[in-house]
Amino acid sequence: MYNDRVVHSDIDCERFFTKTVNSIKGLSESAIAGMKSHLDSLTKPLGSLGLVEDLAIRLAGIYGSIRYDASDKAVIVMAADNGVVEEGVSSCPKDVTATVTENFCKGFTAINVFCRYVKSRLVIIDIGVDADIALTGPDAHSMKVMRSTGNIARGPAMSRPDAFRAIAVGIDAAQREADRGVRVLGTGEMGIGNTTTSSAMLAALTGLPPAAVTGRGAGLSDSALARKLDVVGMALDVNQPARDDAIDVISKVGGLDIAGLVGVFLGGASRQLPVVIDGFISGVAALAASRLCPAVTPYMIPSHVSAEPGTAALFEALDMQPPLHLGMRLGEGTGAALAFTLIDLCIRVVEEMGTFPDAGICQYIPQED
Amino acid sequence: MYNDRVVHSDIDCERFFTKTVNSIKGLSESAIAGMKSHLDSLTKPLGSLGLVEDLAIRLAGIYGSIRYDASDKAVIVMAADNGVVEEGVSSCPKDVTATVTENFCKGFTAINVFCRYVKSRLVIIDIGVDADIALTGPDAHSMKVMRSTGNIARGPAMSRPDAFRAIAVGIDAAQREADRGVRVLGTGEMGIGNTTTSSAMLAALTGLPPAAVTGRGAGLSDSALARKLDVVGMALDVNQPARDDAIDVISKVGGLDIAGLVGVFLGGASRQLPVVIDGFISGVAALAASRLCPAVTPYMIPSHVSAEPGTAALFEALDMQPPLHLGMRLGEGTGAALAFTLIDLCIRVVEEMGTFPDAGICQYIPQED
Repeated sequence: MYNDRVVHSDIDCERFFTKTVNSIKGLSESAIAGMKSHLDSLTKPLGSLGLVEDLAIRLAGIYGSIRYDASDKAVIVMAADNGVVEEGVSSCPKDVTATVTENFCKGFTAINVFCRYVKSRLVIIDIGVDADIALTGPDAHSMKVMRSTGNIARGPAMSRPDAFRAIAVGIDAAQREADRGVRVLGTGEMGIGNTTTSSAMLAALTGLPPAAVTGRGAGLSDSALARKLDVVGMALDVNQPARDDAIDVISKVGGLDIAGLVGVFLGGASRQLPVVIDGFISGVAALAASRLCPAVTPYMIPSHVSAEPGTAALFEALDMQPPLHLGMRLGEGTGAALAFTLIDLCIRVVEEMGTFPDAGICQYIPQED
Repeated sequence: MYNDRVVHSDIDCERFFTKTVNSIKGLSESAIAGMKSHLDSLTKPLGSLGLVEDLAIRLAGIYGSIRYDASDKAVIVMAADNGVVEEGVSSCPKDVTATVTENFCKGFTAINVFCRYVKSRLVIIDIGVDADIALTGPDAHSMKVMRSTGNIARGPAMSRPDAFRAIAVGIDAAQREADRGVRVLGTGEMGIGNTTTSSAMLAALTGLPPAAVTGRGAGLSDSALARKLDVVGMALDVNQPARDDAIDVISKVGGLDIAGLVGVFLGGASRQLPVVIDGFISGVAALAASRLCPAVTPYMIPSHVSAEPGTAALFEALDMQPPLHLGMRLGEGTGAALAFTLIDLCIRVVEEMGTFPDAGICQYIPQED
């Protein structure tokens, strides 16, 4: 288990955040150019592997080399409760957050299956579950910033210092994984009510109306969806989050899980690691991170388009096209884990495909007019 | 190497085709119901794994059981030349078909890399390459129906009996793979000029104008694309393929590779195996197969949306939503191979996820109004 240097020490979390943001470098232009040249030498029409090539180029820029090892992977799942569930915005009772978080440690949830399939470790962080939960195993960590956020329909989710503390937990988690040799990070979350906080944050960050960014989550009825829409509108009215201040948005209408994931994106990028976005909630954290630090954006890799309707607006705001269209809406990091297969594939392409001289044919050059 | 019972014997290929079509059964409704029930017992919101669940259900129906082994996989690549290349419709010289087909046997092309990554065998069938090529290894087979088709801009691609013979080669290949224990088939092709024949077939089968279904293939310039559009129009004018007779469409404006893949879909379905569609060319073969035999359709699994612009119209005609959006336009079966990962994943989900009683929580039931 991680020690509690962030949560229970006197570390200045805002300063830790600022230092991390300032340490994030641009990608390596020389590695990007080298990878483009290598891909164009491979025996295939130029660019014909599409996003697989784009991903290979991006990873080269992130790692600073055209040959890289990405075998050691981890999905970091942030689990927290959301005070807004008392408004009746979820089809699940609140205690499902605690139960599912414990079940992550038992190995039979969806993300456990996905992580085993893609040969990734699963790191669980209780950043704000409103229960004393049994976390077992070396990769489950109690890092509660507090027990649940406040109800955003009635007031702020958390204070500004608590938002920085939750972000610091995420930075710290990503950096610890980097220190132990992890080369690819994925993001996931568990928290009943967190599509409501995500919709409120997305509306606040983009200026879009609640109706454009709010959906059924795990399976709301029509009347419950209408209630959820009202609640998102109330959260924005009551809190008046400042669109150009993502920390204000996180603290007023966000959640501890989302804040923690903002930190994971920043912490991963600070160690020159790619961090894979999962679906809607993780994507809202990615958008907040990119507002706080534009330099983090190229380190973030999209994975899938979830069934949550705000996802289209979200990825438009991020200017990203996720490659997987599976209609999944489970969260937990399942989409991020699945995208790890694309990272492995593009490394195999780079290492194993023959070049035009090997192939005995001239390069397929697009015809010029 | 396969023996040449189809190509050089007196087998009645039309009768073999008809017998195969008539042997294709509907999916198992009881296995479908059993899988739905099993998936709904797993600890996740109902339906929240989207297409992963749909695929698990489909495979149950195909295999006739909720527990199935799909570990032994093969991608069958049909290679052939197309007479229409003499019209200048491709950015690649014609001899690339022969060279790349030989390179499949050397192990360094894209589909070799993809197949190794997904632990699939790669089966190469020369069904009409216009050269004496060196096929090496146990999975490369010379089954030439003829050396190249005719130029569809000037006359038919092949005779009606030759179309049945090429389809019979594909049926035979799929059935032989089934006989050796393969449980999942993928489709691929290699043939310079085959996006032109595919566009002509798609226009003929759907009634869409050539401009709606014709693209740049491996990388045509604007002027070459205009020429390709003219050629597709000429092929339709000269040959007047009958929209409601897919054999007429294949023989007049198709190719041997496409006809062979039609056979792979039918042969796989006749042995109750799923057959994964690759991109545009393979998808056109799938559409022709579904026109010839509607019962084959549920055995066909879509994989990816290629960059070829006719793909959208194609999958609309097939009423399928491919899950992978990677902008690939390489062919060779690369998209089909990549989709094998989803088949493996859904088997892991079915076998490894816990149920609600395991999880200590009630089922997440969507709220009723």
